[in-house]
Amino acid sequence: MSTPTSYHLPWDEFRRQGYALIDWIADYHEHVEQYPVLSQVAPGEIRAQLPPHPPQQGEPFAAVMADVDRIIMPGVTHWQSPNFFAFFPSNTSGPAILGDLLSSGLGVQGMLWLTSPACTELETHMMDWLAEMLGLPEQFRSTATGGGVIQDSASSATLCALLAARERATGWAVNQRGGTGQLIAYASSQAHSSIEKAMMVAGMGRENLRTIAVDEHFAMIPEALAAQIAADKAAGLTPAFVCANVGSTSSNAMDPVRAIGEICRAQGVWLHVDAAMSGTAALCPEFRWILDGIELADSFCFNPHKWMFTNFDVDAFFVADRKALIDTLSILPEYLRNTATGSGSVIDYRDWQIPLGRRFRSLKLWFVIRHYGVEGLQYHVRNHVKMTQELAEWVRADDRFELAAPAPLNLVCFRHKGGDAVNQQIMDRLNRSGDLYLSHTKLDGKFTLRMSIGQTEVRREHIVAAWAKIRAASQP
Amino acid sequence: MSTPTSYHLPWDEFRRQGYALIDWIADYHEHVEQYPVLSQVAPGEIRAQLPPHPPQQGEPFAAVMADVDRIIMPGVTHWQSPNFFAFFPSNTSGPAILGDLLSSGLGVQGMLWLTSPACTELETHMMDWLAEMLGLPEQFRSTATGGGVIQDSASSATLCALLAARERATGWAVNQRGGTGQLIAYASSQAHSSIEKAMMVAGMGRENLRTIAVDEHFAMIPEALAAQIAADKAAGLTPAFVCANVGSTSSNAMDPVRAIGEICRAQGVWLHVDAAMSGTAALCPEFRWILDGIELADSFCFNPHKWMFTNFDVDAFFVADRKALIDTLSILPEYLRNTATGSGSVIDYRDWQIPLGRRFRSLKLWFVIRHYGVEGLQYHVRNHVKMTQELAEWVRADDRFELAAPAPLNLVCFRHKGGDAVNQQIMDRLNRSGDLYLSHTKLDGKFTLRMSIGQTEVRREHIVAAWAKIRAASQP
Repeated sequence: MSTPTSYHLPWDEFRRQGYALIDWIADYHEHVEQYPVLSQVAPGEIRAQLPPHPPQQGEPFAAVMADVDRIIMPGVTHWQSPNFFAFFPSNTSGPAILGDLLSSGLGVQGMLWLTSPACTELETHMMDWLAEMLGLPEQFRSTATGGGVIQDSASSATLCALLAARERATGWAVNQRGGTGQLIAYASSQAHSSIEKAMMVAGMGRENLRTIAVDEHFAMIPEALAAQIAADKAAGLTPAFVCANVGSTSSNAMDPVRAIGEICRAQGVWLHVDAAMSGTAALCPEFRWILDGIELADSFCFNPHKWMFTNFDVDAFFVADRKALIDTLSILPEYLRNTATGSGSVIDYRDWQIPLGRRFRSLKLWFVIRHYGVEGLQYHVRNHVKMTQELAEWVRADDRFELAAPAPLNLVCFRHKGGDAVNQQIMDRLNRSGDLYLSHTKLDGKFTLRMSIGQTEVRREHIVAAWAKIRAASQP
Repeated sequence: MSTPTSYHLPWDEFRRQGYALIDWIADYHEHVEQYPVLSQVAPGEIRAQLPPHPPQQGEPFAAVMADVDRIIMPGVTHWQSPNFFAFFPSNTSGPAILGDLLSSGLGVQGMLWLTSPACTELETHMMDWLAEMLGLPEQFRSTATGGGVIQDSASSATLCALLAARERATGWAVNQRGGTGQLIAYASSQAHSSIEKAMMVAGMGRENLRTIAVDEHFAMIPEALAAQIAADKAAGLTPAFVCANVGSTSSNAMDPVRAIGEICRAQGVWLHVDAAMSGTAALCPEFRWILDGIELADSFCFNPHKWMFTNFDVDAFFVADRKALIDTLSILPEYLRNTATGSGSVIDYRDWQIPLGRRFRSLKLWFVIRHYGVEGLQYHVRNHVKMTQELAEWVRADDRFELAAPAPLNLVCFRHKGGDAVNQQIMDRLNRSGDLYLSHTKLDGKFTLRMSIGQTEVRREHIVAAWAKIRAASQP
């Protein structure tokens, strides 16, 4: 394995190990249904099997892979199982895995255009492709005033949007002097926790995030937003940021982007549209209603690493005015200066994000889009939505259960009519069985089961089986 | 390739494509010296070759890989070349590539312990291994009051440390109410730009970052720090955060951690030690002097993705008091609640970072440490330092050149005595040649060449050849 003169893995040996690992991954995906979906280990059980001290001498690859099978795998919750229905999809695919492997193999840093022009230019191009595929308006493209960038997560995209909003609202004063007590942000009661977290990180304070009421479908009530903004202005505060959710995590609620956008435009407030969960649906023209009014937004994000067969991390974050974002996040120390940057003719993505470093993440998007084609991606989105709608019908038709929210796309929120304890018990039984994995939320104060349908290999038979098991688990 | 009934890549086909890509990567590393190190393309040249619109129908893998060779590769700057001496090492290795491949293949989300216990527990364990390997004091381990977490970059680690410092200094008030105008941070004039950026992100304002003077070796002068803290206190301000650099990016300057730490302890100021560039050296007992006084720090980070053969992203971030960090970054919405989290018996790493999602990054660290063993990693650190010291000797011995800073580890800062224009010309000539890639900084106001020695495959012959080319390029 290692030799005293180098210790490096010889590349011939890398080939052999690499083939074996490729086979391991293919075997894993072919047999993923054999594992309990939710890992059944107790806290500390994995660590207890690991040696307390690092090895002084190198060990053979086979020993490591044996420990992967023996120690690691029992501690894995199988997000790629077709019986994984919890939280949100985090679907991957062969082309994404290979694109990511190429990125690892090249090992380039894309912090500046100069440090690998292809890393920056392919990313810009993929973001423009995605803008076209989703029907985003012109201003979100690099060829106009805006453009896209890959963020690690929607949390980071939201934070970057909030920071740009903070600076725009204060004439770039907070970056200079700090202190933000008068700035107010708005999101619905159903908005993702990342907005509250971003308020904390940005030094704006969670108390300055206003929770806007929702309607019976858990969508933000625009009139309530307008009233709150007016009240804050009257109190001498500065409304700076609104986050609209297109597909809330809790129930897939759809905030009305157009009505919210009109209020934001009239009031000069930054509108960020967080479509992390559901933006992928806009690949299909028949689902583009979810983004109606998106031309009124200042920023937008969705997660190909949730529902577009591309493994984490790829959040696609778009801004209508890239200058506002860059002016907020740019720092240029001497050791990063170079002719290309100085000329202003290139994008340096370090100025579009919090970290400095970045890997070649657009490769996996490129591999996925070219493998599936737009048509293949649309096929799967439609299929997931169709299966979800069928499940919603089954819930409606069973008088022991009820839908807890509309199921506009690929999430069904439902509950047994027997109350919280019964629903908790159904979930615990199913998750402990290892047959499938569901998660929950609270809607109208009630414990509610969530079934999210978007895994790569999920087929109708899995939904049929899951529904049968849910009904069986609801027997006393 | 794609079939009308699924469009997915069949796993048998994935095997064939995977073997081919493994071979491509091995070939790439075996022949990486054949490419010009710095990409020679002009802005826009890569994009111009990409189709303006995404494909409607899927395409075969072979077509994509042909475009990788034809379009992408000319736009790659080869960070893995042994002739890459710019910025900092970003070295990878076969075991790291395979560990990352396994992470992509499993496709798990590690936001909560529950969502893959092995992802959390292996990470905690690897951080404890690293703490032991670097000789960090007990408080930085998960078995005591602290512990480690993988961040995407030192920028994010610095930001998290600053946020915890901000909250500790204000009794967790900024998270609640915003507004931070009275909080002051400190770093030397040589500190990384990420500290200024973190001040902006955190809403603390770049004007509230005090630049502390450095000595003739570009290391922070502790007395200057103490004087500035005293002056700020006298002015009614609140000193909250000091960042000490162990290996500055510009010149590898070593701030005196012990003296700085004593001041911070006496004044109740959070001390973060940023050893992104150089912390790996502490694998070897003879280089642990760089961390002398680390027991006085509140947080510490170093980058295995720079100098420990592990591809981006792995910044290892340690805190002495994990409660301070978690109390700063924790948010728990209903849809993430679960028994394990509620019991307090597990780590949920989402509370240790800005994003919610996270991939299984500890696998590649595990693969690297087990492949090389501590002994193999030490071997390479020593070898890199030895080569660097030899180069520094050659610079000292050539009366046309001078060292611009001490070269304590694996970075040599030097310049031709002919002035800025000559040094700029040397750098441009070399970088345009494609034979090697150097970058620059300014020290004492003078344009200075930097040669960073830490690539995986770099050997003495590459340094010999580089020095000969530098001398040749300095001829008029």
